[in-house]
Amino acid sequence: MIRNSVDRALRDRAEAVIPNGMYGHQAVGLLPDDYPQFFSRAEGARLWDADGNELIDFMCAYGPNLFGYGNPQINAAFVRQMEEGDTLTGPTARIVEMAEAMVAMVSHADWAIFCKNGTDATAMAAVVARAHTRRKTIVRAKGAYHGWAPLFTSRRAGITPEDQAHQIICDYNDVASLEAAVAQAGEDLAGVFAAPVKHDAFIDQAPPDPAYANRARALCDEAGALLVVDDVRAGLRIARDCSWSTVGVEPDLSTWGKCIANGHPISALLGSNKARTAAGKIFATGSYWFQSAPLAAGVATMQLVRDTDYLERIETLGQRLRDGLAERASAAGFGLRQTGPVTMPLFLFEDDPDLRKGFCWSSAMLERGVYVHPWHNMFLCAAMTEADIDQTLDAAEGSFKALKAAQPLAPVEKMAFLTA
Amino acid sequence: MIRNSVDRALRDRAEAVIPNGMYGHQAVGLLPDDYPQFFSRAEGARLWDADGNELIDFMCAYGPNLFGYGNPQINAAFVRQMEEGDTLTGPTARIVEMAEAMVAMVSHADWAIFCKNGTDATAMAAVVARAHTRRKTIVRAKGAYHGWAPLFTSRRAGITPEDQAHQIICDYNDVASLEAAVAQAGEDLAGVFAAPVKHDAFIDQAPPDPAYANRARALCDEAGALLVVDDVRAGLRIARDCSWSTVGVEPDLSTWGKCIANGHPISALLGSNKARTAAGKIFATGSYWFQSAPLAAGVATMQLVRDTDYLERIETLGQRLRDGLAERASAAGFGLRQTGPVTMPLFLFEDDPDLRKGFCWSSAMLERGVYVHPWHNMFLCAAMTEADIDQTLDAAEGSFKALKAAQPLAPVEKMAFLTA
Repeated sequence: MIRNSVDRALRDRAEAVIPNGMYGHQAVGLLPDDYPQFFSRAEGARLWDADGNELIDFMCAYGPNLFGYGNPQINAAFVRQMEEGDTLTGPTARIVEMAEAMVAMVSHADWAIFCKNGTDATAMAAVVARAHTRRKTIVRAKGAYHGWAPLFTSRRAGITPEDQAHQIICDYNDVASLEAAVAQAGEDLAGVFAAPVKHDAFIDQAPPDPAYANRARALCDEAGALLVVDDVRAGLRIARDCSWSTVGVEPDLSTWGKCIANGHPISALLGSNKARTAAGKIFATGSYWFQSAPLAAGVATMQLVRDTDYLERIETLGQRLRDGLAERASAAGFGLRQTGPVTMPLFLFEDDPDLRKGFCWSSAMLERGVYVHPWHNMFLCAAMTEADIDQTLDAAEGSFKALKAAQPLAPVEKMAFLTA
Repeated sequence: MIRNSVDRALRDRAEAVIPNGMYGHQAVGLLPDDYPQFFSRAEGARLWDADGNELIDFMCAYGPNLFGYGNPQINAAFVRQMEEGDTLTGPTARIVEMAEAMVAMVSHADWAIFCKNGTDATAMAAVVARAHTRRKTIVRAKGAYHGWAPLFTSRRAGITPEDQAHQIICDYNDVASLEAAVAQAGEDLAGVFAAPVKHDAFIDQAPPDPAYANRARALCDEAGALLVVDDVRAGLRIARDCSWSTVGVEPDLSTWGKCIANGHPISALLGSNKARTAAGKIFATGSYWFQSAPLAAGVATMQLVRDTDYLERIETLGQRLRDGLAERASAAGFGLRQTGPVTMPLFLFEDDPDLRKGFCWSSAMLERGVYVHPWHNMFLCAAMTEADIDQTLDAAEGSFKALKAAQPLAPVEKMAFLTA
């Protein structure tokens, strides 16, 4: 067992002053019981939990860490700007520079609006699509996460039917289903939302079918509706452009966040000239949307995106991890399904509907100093090295052995909903 | 005329890559034409625009600047934590410390949820109220700003009627109107939202009528609904507690933001135990909600709130400003209505329905090195000194003279909507 006394003490304190002790996507309620809730320190690709256990972190803060925790170049740009002026009575030149950098990088984009949360960007995209078309209906794929806003959430508590009115759900990568949804929308189609890849939790990931992406583009064009690619999670780990550039499709709007300033808080809605007038008609704002230090960090991040081979490196590392894991899983007699882009992998064991194997193996990885997620896609970062991957593969070999020794496993009670 | 060539050049660049050249509450479209859009530097109570013009800043970033731009103690806490770990795969102890600090400070609060935008907090408050009651209807006052979310926005572009379903609008401080709205909600009342003071744009501000606040509390109790005070804008400038503590009323939920980390990006939803279960049932999250450096800055800010006389000082400075302005306006023969808490003043000239006097006087203030707002409440900060106020009063005297010399003024075309 890894040390956890500091974590347990913090959980007790948190329980008193935070509902359920934590909330949101970083609450560990649906992770193995030995996973730490609290952390203390990070550097590069390494993370230390509150008890000082050192971990190679394959979550990368659920995406934001692209160039390494505490990246010196990006943080220096941040601090320099913070000392000059951060949250002010108006923006500085940094907002213009960041807009210019993103517009230069993303083929479809002619303009940018910066905000704080990915949810800000997706919620604005819906409003812009409706403003542009003066229609209401949004088509999106079942199971795709587009933020927590009442418009899009899959939770029911406190959400009214009207919050989710004027939406039609289709199946991702299923052209017939998309066509049926668009036909159902009829004259009222405002926009089609799409994840750049299928990166839903709990299930195998899938790349976009080019036929699906192209059909979405064509259907939007026919209807005069806007195509929105939600690149908040996958952006910059698939392309130095909107992720659907890999299948030759340009959306009208794309949403960005997480890693565009390497963990400093910015998200963005990018759009083409077609949508510019509508974007100028909506009102959206936030107290910190114009703060300049995160924008300076974003400009520095864009420089690294443009000027380094970070993408090729994380692809090579991801392939090394995928190949090495496949070999070790197979040698140990386990079927391990590795899906998603190699830079955003998800691991699921064969014959593991309630994730009992996944939980056991992930716990064994944690004990061996590697933080993997049993049901959410992971993220690689450019601070990872071949040595990190090889250390991960060694840990995996030991963890497959531990999993074998642990058979038969008891069900994971809290995951029973998966098979209910 | 103040120098503006750098600002104009930045506006041209921004026009190309940002819809309308800027967006949100910091776009200067509805400010006098000579107001700068872009800034370069800030320190304490001073702000420099992009052209290097030095200004005493009475907007304080629209609220976030409470303890002075670049406050060394708060920024040191921020940087120390940023170097340890900021946006990670989970929170650090800082989130617990900040929750403990706010719960200790705010009488009604038993728990906290931290987020990024004020709008996050108000949107969550609506979902929590609906989850708690399993009802839908929200009562709120006409003209009050509770964020840009489709649920609450007053803009129409891209907003559907369903986005604003299940809401009844009453008049602030009007008990009969509130009672009628609650009666209309009947069995379906989920919550009553209230601004802590009437701080709507373009009109005279007003303190809460204690009868109104107490009636809101009683009506919520009778209906089993939640009372929500939206303290995002006014929090910490009226009390070291929820602002309605000044009229003896405790809400079930309160929303916070802007200055709780002195401009570092955090907002918060605070709640009483009554609402804890419902708060634990909703799902709301964001990529940067758990980042630790802003939370460390928040903890440092809470220390200054608790341990210094900042509130008494800004109240004294605000009174000095109000008294001095009244005297100078009257000596110059102008009727100047000064409303709002002295720490959050709004100035409107008598007989100035289209703000032509306000615009002229504000421009004259800007030319004299003082940034005031002609139609939005302003904010004082603890970095201001008596000398700053006296310099402001000298500028005001000169500006009243300039206004007198400018009579009769031409209408401000872009403000014609005020009298349409």
